[in-house]
Amino acid sequence: MNDNSNANLNARQHRGAKRRAKTRADLLAAARHVFARKGYHDASILDITEAADVGVGTFYLHFRDKDEIFNTLIDEVLRILEEQVINEVLSSEAVTLPVIVRSIFHHAYAERDLFSIALASGAQVAQTIRVEDMIAQGLTRAFERATQSGQLQGYDIFLLARLVTGVIAQGIIWWFEQDDPGPEEMAQNVLNLLEHGLPASLFEENLLPPGTEL
Amino acid sequence: MNDNSNANLNARQHRGAKRRAKTRADLLAAARHVFARKGYHDASILDITEAADVGVGTFYLHFRDKDEIFNTLIDEVLRILEEQVINEVLSSEAVTLPVIVRSIFHHAYAERDLFSIALASGAQVAQTIRVEDMIAQGLTRAFERATQSGQLQGYDIFLLARLVTGVIAQGIIWWFEQDDPGPEEMAQNVLNLLEHGLPASLFEENLLPPGTEL
Repeated sequence: MNDNSNANLNARQHRGAKRRAKTRADLLAAARHVFARKGYHDASILDITEAADVGVGTFYLHFRDKDEIFNTLIDEVLRILEEQVINEVLSSEAVTLPVIVRSIFHHAYAERDLFSIALASGAQVAQTIRVEDMIAQGLTRAFERATQSGQLQGYDIFLLARLVTGVIAQGIIWWFEQDDPGPEEMAQNVLNLLEHGLPASLFEENLLPPGTEL
Repeated sequence: MNDNSNANLNARQHRGAKRRAKTRADLLAAARHVFARKGYHDASILDITEAADVGVGTFYLHFRDKDEIFNTLIDEVLRILEEQVINEVLSSEAVTLPVIVRSIFHHAYAERDLFSIALASGAQVAQTIRVEDMIAQGLTRAFERATQSGQLQGYDIFLLARLVTGVIAQGIIWWFEQDDPGPEEMAQNVLNLLEHGLPASLFEENLLPPGTEL
């Protein structure tokens, strides 16, 4: 083989890799559309390949089954979400808790259709845990920094990050069943609870009259 | 058939029903033991029937497959947990938020082995959501009562119940990977966050020096 045919081969390989990456991206975009319209259970691989305008055999060059393309889809959305939040938080003037919380809610709200499908389809807990891990890790790093500058003395910051994650995750889960309140108001509700706590009376007064049935 | 043989038949049917209920309970207890020792994936129906000292065929008179006995086990534990918490809360002198939170953590801590198996085995999100729904419903009812006595004005109590549920659920999830802190200290951490919120500085000051990589 001379240099010329080597160069041709490289160019052909390069074009092939680009084409495969494009087909894969097309399949993922089509899958998201099909899952959103039909739900996980009713969506078929044929639906996805038709929407992506490729043959069924092509599907299996990229994904083992419906489960794998679905998990890949969720993974990619989570990765993008994480990047977006990190970029937005780092580019803001001051990284305060309100900046972090608002950013998470704004980006998660935009992807709430996919989160709903993930949960409605009986997704594995592992995926929910991944979202929560992502949030908890970000908060832990922020809380560690806060400890270094003398804040949060006496707190177990790992546990604290988990508990705060719980509040944020429930805000996202809320959108599985309803669209309101939107991200800004949701962030306000969450930040209000995290900043001020609940009214003191709940901790002292009887929440139920005696003899009530729960 | 005379009255006597009818009575005999009834007695036999009654004994049969009692025996079946006992076998079912034995299978569930054995399954819990086997799942805890081997994990969900490595546990076999044969392991369960051997531990329960019944034949494999008997298993299928009660449960369709491993998945069904596992889900039944979780459902029963959740039902018992709910009853225990409700009884304890209602029998306490005053139903305050600390009483509710402490009761949930004490009972959940005792069952944390089963919760761990449920999550480690890649259980469906549906089951996690059931636990959270249970907690959220109880809190919503308590918050509704609080509203009637003039507390919590201006709050969306359904959303608030969900957000607080998130904190409590994360406390339980914490025990999937570690046993400490125990239920009393966990309740203290959660109640401290819910009563006082986070330090004000987190809402104002920069959590990261400029140029930090997250």
